[in-house]
Amino acid sequence: MARPQMGDERREQILEAFEKCVIRKGVAKTTLSDVAKESDLPRSLVRYFVGNRADMVDLLINRMIERAEDGLAHLRPKSRPQTTQDFVDFLFENTFANDLSNNVVGELWYMSERDESIRKRLAAMYGRVIHLMVAQMEADGIGSSAGQRRDAANIILSLVYGQASFRELGMPGMAGKAAHTHALTIIDTLPTKSKKKTSNKETK
Amino acid sequence: MARPQMGDERREQILEAFEKCVIRKGVAKTTLSDVAKESDLPRSLVRYFVGNRADMVDLLINRMIERAEDGLAHLRPKSRPQTTQDFVDFLFENTFANDLSNNVVGELWYMSERDESIRKRLAAMYGRVIHLMVAQMEADGIGSSAGQRRDAANIILSLVYGQASFRELGMPGMAGKAAHTHALTIIDTLPTKSKKKTSNKETK
Repeated sequence: MARPQMGDERREQILEAFEKCVIRKGVAKTTLSDVAKESDLPRSLVRYFVGNRADMVDLLINRMIERAEDGLAHLRPKSRPQTTQDFVDFLFENTFANDLSNNVVGELWYMSERDESIRKRLAAMYGRVIHLMVAQMEADGIGSSAGQRRDAANIILSLVYGQASFRELGMPGMAGKAAHTHALTIIDTLPTKSKKKTSNKETK
Repeated sequence: MARPQMGDERREQILEAFEKCVIRKGVAKTTLSDVAKESDLPRSLVRYFVGNRADMVDLLINRMIERAEDGLAHLRPKSRPQTTQDFVDFLFENTFANDLSNNVVGELWYMSERDESIRKRLAAMYGRVIHLMVAQMEADGIGSSAGQRRDAANIILSLVYGQASFRELGMPGMAGKAAHTHALTIIDTLPTKSKKKTSNKETK
């Protein structure tokens, strides 16, 4: 690619327009022409940069994964190593607190009911979150077995997702801190061994 | 109505056909003609018995609520009063274990993103589940305050919903008993007072 930088900028511009359309109309009803109009770019360019709708859905998922991993990589205060609690805080406070992400996620979940490949990609995305949470617990010496850590991570992710979903419905009582506090209690009550606080090397 | 019994049967037949169409095509794409074809009844009759699509969505929600309340009313073994544990078991084992319900629920959640009235009806439905769970805890003398019971019920419902959602994605580890066991632990670790096992009068 001759001018990758330029390409990245345009792609970003187009994806942002695509996300706006998705929130307004849903993925199924969003066309390349809609995105062209929203981004103020010619349809041919939209197609050139992001391909067809299936490609856009792929890019959308990749973008969400990137955002999540980016957030997870930078969540700790710089003064100390990252802990499992930071991770849980991040899930409750950031991941599902973004209206745009929630809308896009809602779209993807809906599509996944009839699209095996989207279902698999979503499952991989959430599987990655669980994997990272388990790794963090292990680094913190939390939990006495891999199975125990995995169960805790599954439960916490379900809790985060359920709470965020009901909050979207506007249910009173789902916006409080109870679930978040409970998730931290789950971590706190797991057995710990030799509390090596983290096995990560400081990278900065 | 001259022959309400007959009407109920037809309505049931039509709603079943509607649910099948919804699972296959989604609510948005299901037409009265589809339902007529699926139920093998004339379109005019379908319209007469269930009205337009908005009415069908209403009936669908009512039906889900009826099913859930029916299940909740009959979940205890006849030999003893119903407990909070029965309630939690029911949520994990029945409510979200039905593929048809899950599909319909998925449709309704999706529609709720752009339809305020559906959002309110869904919120009321889940609010009702929480209300019943809280009442059961109170009857069992579980929890030291209304707020504590409500928090516990919110957390358990979120857990049930999150687990069911991830299971739908086909994620390994979400099909196990860990979340169910954890929910029972939440109930078990709440303070209890004077263990009056239930305040319900035996009704049989």
